[in-house]
Amino acid sequence: MKMNDYINLINDYLNEYIQIEEPSELFKSMKYTVTLPGKRLRPVMCLETCSLSGGNFEDAIPCACAIEMLHAQTLIHDDLPCMDNDDFRRGKPSNHKVFGAAVATLSGDALLTYAPQIITKYSKTLSPSKIIMVLNEYFNYAGARGVIAGQVLDIESEKNNDINDKKNTLKYIYIHKTSDLFKLAMRTGAIIANVDDEKLNKITDFAQNFGIAFQMADDILDEISTFEEMGKTTGKDKEEGKLTCVSLYGLDESKNKLSCLLNKCHGIMNELNFKSEIFEQILDKIQKRMDI
Amino acid sequence: MKMNDYINLINDYLNEYIQIEEPSELFKSMKYTVTLPGKRLRPVMCLETCSLSGGNFEDAIPCACAIEMLHAQTLIHDDLPCMDNDDFRRGKPSNHKVFGAAVATLSGDALLTYAPQIITKYSKTLSPSKIIMVLNEYFNYAGARGVIAGQVLDIESEKNNDINDKKNTLKYIYIHKTSDLFKLAMRTGAIIANVDDEKLNKITDFAQNFGIAFQMADDILDEISTFEEMGKTTGKDKEEGKLTCVSLYGLDESKNKLSCLLNKCHGIMNELNFKSEIFEQILDKIQKRMDI
Repeated sequence: MKMNDYINLINDYLNEYIQIEEPSELFKSMKYTVTLPGKRLRPVMCLETCSLSGGNFEDAIPCACAIEMLHAQTLIHDDLPCMDNDDFRRGKPSNHKVFGAAVATLSGDALLTYAPQIITKYSKTLSPSKIIMVLNEYFNYAGARGVIAGQVLDIESEKNNDINDKKNTLKYIYIHKTSDLFKLAMRTGAIIANVDDEKLNKITDFAQNFGIAFQMADDILDEISTFEEMGKTTGKDKEEGKLTCVSLYGLDESKNKLSCLLNKCHGIMNELNFKSEIFEQILDKIQKRMDI
Repeated sequence: MKMNDYINLINDYLNEYIQIEEPSELFKSMKYTVTLPGKRLRPVMCLETCSLSGGNFEDAIPCACAIEMLHAQTLIHDDLPCMDNDDFRRGKPSNHKVFGAAVATLSGDALLTYAPQIITKYSKTLSPSKIIMVLNEYFNYAGARGVIAGQVLDIESEKNNDINDKKNTLKYIYIHKTSDLFKLAMRTGAIIANVDDEKLNKITDFAQNFGIAFQMADDILDEISTFEEMGKTTGKDKEEGKLTCVSLYGLDESKNKLSCLLNKCHGIMNELNFKSEIFEQILDKIQKRMDI
């Protein structure tokens, strides 16, 4: 499959999985952010990892879509006035600007239950014990020990002033807030394909490094890009004195670190003997956006 | 088991299931609301239904505790400034008054993942397919088609002025916002005990009627009680012109309706041939609070 084939497939399933039922405001709010045009990186990486690991990517479609729903949920709640208070997301008004903060809070809550339900409901080809393995991954990386741990540290990061602590904190935020969803995507794809533990560890290592690189690129672009390029308000991190790689290491060193991480990712792909045009494209795209 | 034995057991497990890990603010916030003293009605009803249906209630402990965590999650988010904006809960400052709205939002999110994880992690005596049956119940009643549907209608209820629509809306809110968690509690207890469909339907019917009665009692008490009796701000419904049985039917008719529902519940218990001191106590307690 090519990147665009995966993206179209995922968009079709996301559309099918969320029909507008009653109460329609709730389902519209859920569907609004989930179906905003996006790169669908996490589900694409889930399906491609499944395929590269010798599995049938179609078995992983419910899981891939669940992860995209979970990602959308984090965006909805992140943008809330009591959180980052962002009015735009992917070039459109954020969820609470359209549906109000109360419905946006509840539609985020709903997605947190809807996403794993998609896995149990539509993974017809997986055995019950495989489904539970996938859910355990999901619960682990989506929850208080995963993405949410990163979000809490991100919120609290301004309080700390020790430079060594800051470096550790930033790494922790990158790993949990960003890498954990990529780990979830790639690990579940691999688990559905029945990979062995050694491969699973390498895949996890790739996702860990990739996630950090991805978030560093996002932080760098927040500094050097415009609203039009990013689809969301930029320059806010600096304005708010937020802890990012740019504030901690400066622009040049951040770019160097990012290149190192991407090289590491290429290396792990080789070790895994994964020949993937899609992963090459994804890694190159991040590098190229930095070179502008 | 007596009521207090169940309550102590549930409190012990809730304490054990949520240890304070890093980030400690997050886990403290989760644990704060989950462990506030409460009647533990939902988990008690889950365990007792399992027992009355011929099952071993210990098999249902993880599920019962997950439902209490889910219930706590709804309280945390309900109390947020962008929702009901309540400063007190169970006689204590609400979660966001202690931890701030951002952490309260995230700890509610975390509980939505933590709760079903408790089921998969600790239900050692259940088969994988039984665990998935329990999770399907959980996802169904906890999500956009369950509790959250009720919460959305509750928020939007002020907009509507047609009296017949109001009656239907109020019933819908009661069923989803309140009955659905009781249905979840009793159905999962029964499913773990392997009841047949006929019994399961009757149990669902009991929970449906019980939930409506329970919420009517709450609405009536909001009108006639004090902060000290309720542990939360009272009289707010009236002040805010909220749709409740009292605003729709008046105090006397509401009390009559409530008595009818409780009688219906006694009738279903008889049909089920459930002889339960605990359910008798629960039903009588609601009736007695109305008789004051």
